[in-house]
Amino acid sequence: MTKPLHLHEDRYFSPDPVQRECARKLYQKVSHLPLICPHGHVDPRLLAENTPFPNPTELLVLPDHYLFRMLHSQGISLETLGIRTIDGSDTETDPRKIWQIVGDHFYLFRGTPTGLWLKQELKEVLGVSVRLDGNTALDIYDQISDCLKKPENLPRAMFERFNIEVLSTADSPTDLLEAHEEINKSGWKARIIPSFRPDNVTNIHFPEWIKQLRKLEEITGFDCSSYSGFIKALEDRRTYFKKFGCVATDHGVTTAYTGSLSLNTAGSIYSKALKGEATQEEAVQFTGHMLMEMARMSIEDGMTMQVHMGVLRNHDPRTYQRFGADKGADIPIRVDFVNGLKPLLNTFGNDPRLTIICFSMDESTYAREAAPLAGYYPALKLGPAWWFHDSREGMMRFRRWTTETAGFYNTVGFNDDTRAFPSIPSRHDLARRVDSRFLAELVSEHVLDMDEAEEIIVDLAYNLVKKNYHL
Amino acid sequence: MTKPLHLHEDRYFSPDPVQRECARKLYQKVSHLPLICPHGHVDPRLLAENTPFPNPTELLVLPDHYLFRMLHSQGISLETLGIRTIDGSDTETDPRKIWQIVGDHFYLFRGTPTGLWLKQELKEVLGVSVRLDGNTALDIYDQISDCLKKPENLPRAMFERFNIEVLSTADSPTDLLEAHEEINKSGWKARIIPSFRPDNVTNIHFPEWIKQLRKLEEITGFDCSSYSGFIKALEDRRTYFKKFGCVATDHGVTTAYTGSLSLNTAGSIYSKALKGEATQEEAVQFTGHMLMEMARMSIEDGMTMQVHMGVLRNHDPRTYQRFGADKGADIPIRVDFVNGLKPLLNTFGNDPRLTIICFSMDESTYAREAAPLAGYYPALKLGPAWWFHDSREGMMRFRRWTTETAGFYNTVGFNDDTRAFPSIPSRHDLARRVDSRFLAELVSEHVLDMDEAEEIIVDLAYNLVKKNYHL
Amino acid sequence: MTKPLHLHEDRYFSPDPVQRECARKLYQKVSHLPLICPHGHVDPRLLAENTPFPNPTELLVLPDHYLFRMLHSQGISLETLGIRTIDGSDTETDPRKIWQIVGDHFYLFRGTPTGLWLKQELKEVLGVSVRLDGNTALDIYDQISDCLKKPENLPRAMFERFNIEVLSTADSPTDLLEAHEEINKSGWKARIIPSFRPDNVTNIHFPEWIKQLRKLEEITGFDCSSYSGFIKALEDRRTYFKKFGCVATDHGVTTAYTGSLSLNTAGSIYSKALKGEATQEEAVQFTGHMLMEMARMSIEDGMTMQVHMGVLRNHDPRTYQRFGADKGADIPIRVDFVNGLKPLLNTFGNDPRLTIICFSMDESTYAREAAPLAGYYPALKLGPAWWFHDSREGMMRFRRWTTETAGFYNTVGFNDDTRAFPSIPSRHDLARRVDSRFLAELVSEHVLDMDEAEEIIVDLAYNLVKKNYHL
Repeated sequence: MTKPLHLHEDRYFSPDPVQRECARKLYQKVSHLPLICPHGHVDPRLLAENTPFPNPTELLVLPDHYLFRMLHSQGISLETLGIRTIDGSDTETDPRKIWQIVGDHFYLFRGTPTGLWLKQELKEVLGVSVRLDGNTALDIYDQISDCLKKPENLPRAMFERFNIEVLSTADSPTDLLEAHEEINKSGWKARIIPSFRPDNVTNIHFPEWIKQLRKLEEITGFDCSSYSGFIKALEDRRTYFKKFGCVATDHGVTTAYTGSLSLNTAGSIYSKALKGEATQEEAVQFTGHMLMEMARMSIEDGMTMQVHMGVLRNHDPRTYQRFGADKGADIPIRVDFVNGLKPLLNTFGNDPRLTIICFSMDESTYAREAAPLAGYYPALKLGPAWWFHDSREGMMRFRRWTTETAGFYNTVGFNDDTRAFPSIPSRHDLARRVDSRFLAELVSEHVLDMDEAEEIIVDLAYNLVKKNYHL
Repeated sequence: MTKPLHLHEDRYFSPDPVQRECARKLYQKVSHLPLICPHGHVDPRLLAENTPFPNPTELLVLPDHYLFRMLHSQGISLETLGIRTIDGSDTETDPRKIWQIVGDHFYLFRGTPTGLWLKQELKEVLGVSVRLDGNTALDIYDQISDCLKKPENLPRAMFERFNIEVLSTADSPTDLLEAHEEINKSGWKARIIPSFRPDNVTNIHFPEWIKQLRKLEEITGFDCSSYSGFIKALEDRRTYFKKFGCVATDHGVTTAYTGSLSLNTAGSIYSKALKGEATQEEAVQFTGHMLMEMARMSIEDGMTMQVHMGVLRNHDPRTYQRFGADKGADIPIRVDFVNGLKPLLNTFGNDPRLTIICFSMDESTYAREAAPLAGYYPALKLGPAWWFHDSREGMMRFRRWTTETAGFYNTVGFNDDTRAFPSIPSRHDLARRVDSRFLAELVSEHVLDMDEAEEIIVDLAYNLVKKNYHL
Repeated sequence: MTKPLHLHEDRYFSPDPVQRECARKLYQKVSHLPLICPHGHVDPRLLAENTPFPNPTELLVLPDHYLFRMLHSQGISLETLGIRTIDGSDTETDPRKIWQIVGDHFYLFRGTPTGLWLKQELKEVLGVSVRLDGNTALDIYDQISDCLKKPENLPRAMFERFNIEVLSTADSPTDLLEAHEEINKSGWKARIIPSFRPDNVTNIHFPEWIKQLRKLEEITGFDCSSYSGFIKALEDRRTYFKKFGCVATDHGVTTAYTGSLSLNTAGSIYSKALKGEATQEEAVQFTGHMLMEMARMSIEDGMTMQVHMGVLRNHDPRTYQRFGADKGADIPIRVDFVNGLKPLLNTFGNDPRLTIICFSMDESTYAREAAPLAGYYPALKLGPAWWFHDSREGMMRFRRWTTETAGFYNTVGFNDDTRAFPSIPSRHDLARRVDSRFLAELVSEHVLDMDEAEEIIVDLAYNLVKKNYHL
């Protein structure tokens, strides 16, 4: 027996009638505002090429490590789910078989953001009207397949339908931004901009570091065999990125450590790294030093600096060796904002020209460290609840733990941080609903007046992100 | 003026009428399901001997360190409460006097799980109808004393009345399981099984380690003067325990550290330990190594592996020296799941034959580390909110912090973990009510449909525990 | 368009009608009880001199680092806000200009305790009836200025109007308590007592440590060139403070480290410190040792011992050098209760004569460490949610995370901990409302009966603080 797939219009609001009524009113102020997407991982070629999405499995399963990690946790191998191996050894290739597995196990996602996003995508983006389960999986597969062939579901058509005002991608300094160029030249009037994510050259232990350096040298003409040439090359690439509308850098680091090295020390670590002789400790120091350098450059070129901290990547070596990075085995760790960011904030934190947006998944720091720091240093702002915490409960915890000390105005609105293009509207909608819910709670407890909440909800959904990313 | 002892039928549900109605419906699905008790500390002799409980104080006060630690915190000495000293020096022996103290101070337990459990025990198990306080204490004492003499309140009668489907005890490898054997031979059809808790032989700094090894040697016939003999003896005991229906091991460790030692190193630490020369660091290494060995054996014999991590035992040396262990002075500490469990999970975490259930009281790890790991590794499951967090708020935090990343299906239902036999039904009832409440919240916020919640509540109360403990 | 400044009579209660009705009843039990203020930073000269408050900016902005740190975080310099520099270099001196800036940016405080306190002060203490914003700022300034000139708004008149039963100040051992003496001699019948805060002499790295020692020596006559003279001088000052009604000491320490040094070691570190040669590590050890000494003295003289732990003071050296301490740049850090307090608790924690009240802002310790320790050791009590957590959400988290393990009776009621004298009633009112709300939740979920909650709310608002501070 198939069951209807129903999205309740008051979903994620409190059932308390006073709060619900208030949340509804607040949500109506922002539900139709354009989406600002200052940080995400959508592949720009998708929008450059604008060819139909191949099939439901390629669209919704293979790029979504939230989704396949949960199936993996219940004993379904990544091979069975068709994840491509590095060595090219066989994995499942039949997208229908894979989709059937997802349907059979969709109950695992009850109560998870992945489940909520996917239900909304299925219903609102792809027109599915029955619940996904083992019985309905293949019918839904066929329906989506048909749907994807229609012109209104080409990537650019979706982009426009989603009402995206600006979408930022995440790009290596060695990326030539050809896809961005192609989009610009195509005459399509969408604003799709790169962001500068230099981890593969600033982390001297990045697996292909030397290879990336060579590429950097090649495209900039600066001699990267010396540290000073490397720095010039980076500055050069930032200038290049800015031409494409880039407004922000992004740095993914394991710890919150920052700290300037002397020119000599930086140069000497860099040289050791070129010979493959840098220690783990030196790599940490160099990364911390590069954050200082990046802040310095941001003050010069005005780019907002994003720092994503505290993830141990590739916790499971077997999966990493067989399937590569970003396969669901990245695990959050504790972060020390107070000591880690001290050098960065002491040097640059009071500079009015700089905006540093920090993200971590160590929620124990929200009220203890992150909000007190952001409630003091003008340059520091708090990124929204990140990754596993980009969820109903996660966003409520973020607001509950940061608002009283940092206020609303040291936060920067929402970003979807996704590579799953069709999930973008669902993600923003969830965030807008949860913020409406949080504000409704404050109004109904007489902490805020309604007119204040009406201003704040628009700031959270739209104004703060534009302001902090200079968009 | 005595006040009625009232248990509201909607207790622990939200007062919001939408949520309450929904919680009530969900709770009705599970309130009468049999109790599965896969982990606890009930003494099996209680059920082997089946003699009447001596008196209210022996039944409810002396075995309950939750209870007497709170009285102690308010300046009431353990001596006054009749806790037995190791050296046999005098402590209070009059159970009525002790009970009177409990009555006088029962207000201390307002808002605590101990208070809630005890109220429900008094009312539902022992038929008390007035509130316990200084005025009513002795009347209640007499009433319970009468009650305990009745045949329907013998341990086995209680067991049946409690609707316990299976009860697991916690037993040393050196235990001969005579009480279990006696129960089996008695013809009584209850399922009471041991669990294999080898801390006293796997922790080389356990106070009576050598003595336990001797006993292990004696009952297995394996030469425990060598590490290899020790391992064989453990394997032998696991086989013995399995004959008694044992389905799980349990490991209580201070940190989350795991890691394999070479055979040489393990053997050499073991030898030093036999001479009393092993260092603290070596003890930690050995314990971490034994967890690896236990996982290996579990893959072979199919026993579920429970790991209880992160408690500093016996924080107060005065109490430990005078009264021994388990006297309320064990304090939770921070735990590092990510690095600590990495060796264990990297080696065994993807093995479909293994189930590792982890428990800790470091709630800061729930969303940051535990749920992300359990939402990835097939072997890892999350044990329910443990010890101090086995409570209304504690269980809600557990669900709020783990569900969005690990889902419901990487958790394993409830276990009561108690040595206080008559509190078992109250504990399960509280858990079922809190899970009903949590699900009702999700339904009333349109995260789940009601039919989904109805399935989940039965899974949480009954199916998941049976599945994960192979019961 | 000016908007009315409205304080809803049910503010901070749940909007759920069952809970709200119950919270209202509980709040009514305590809303008019006298305020007990056992810990704060009001300058006693204010009440000794009893001259009119100069102007709104001096009264409400300059002493409130909660307030100006938030403005600073949005790029408004401390210079612009009129904060005095150490070197006397110019900062803004026009109080109206500063007040206008506060008005322009008052929206930053939406959802913060500072905003809630200030609104209530403006309305209830100063008679303001319109919302503070850029348009109303100067009118409000003038209105408050007029108001402050009236005799009913002199400090002593306010004190009486606030219904303060006792107010404790925080005083250096080298303070002669002249203001206290002046108040006593004036014949005014208010109870204003000192508390003994010896950080500037027990922390050997305190900037003016030697200077303070000289002063200590001078006023006590004990030779502070030796450790034993120093200890005698401290004992002497405690005796002196007791004559002024002092009931408590207070210790602000970076970590939770405690531990006794041998007399030799203590003496030797002390001597090195006198020569300016003590290391950072020795300073930590000495501070930890002084906590042990203070506990010993407290057992002798009966003073309650307060320990405020886990703040990294002066995170921003630029602000510290230019403006000094207490300028909003103090940031909470992680705290280790379990190991840090172990020596203190093992030595003194079971002594019925001692009360140690601990405060930290590391909320991850609430349920994991603080409540379990306070639920065991008779001497240890939990101070209320501190500093950044002295807020609606912060106080709710404190109760949710501590009550189930420590109960209500190992907590000590509220203290306002403020140097902002006119904010005292708002702060107590917020705390009483939040506790009423928390209890209303428990009553409406049938965890407590109403008569129990009615007792508890009075204990939390009035009795527990008197008991634990021996007031």
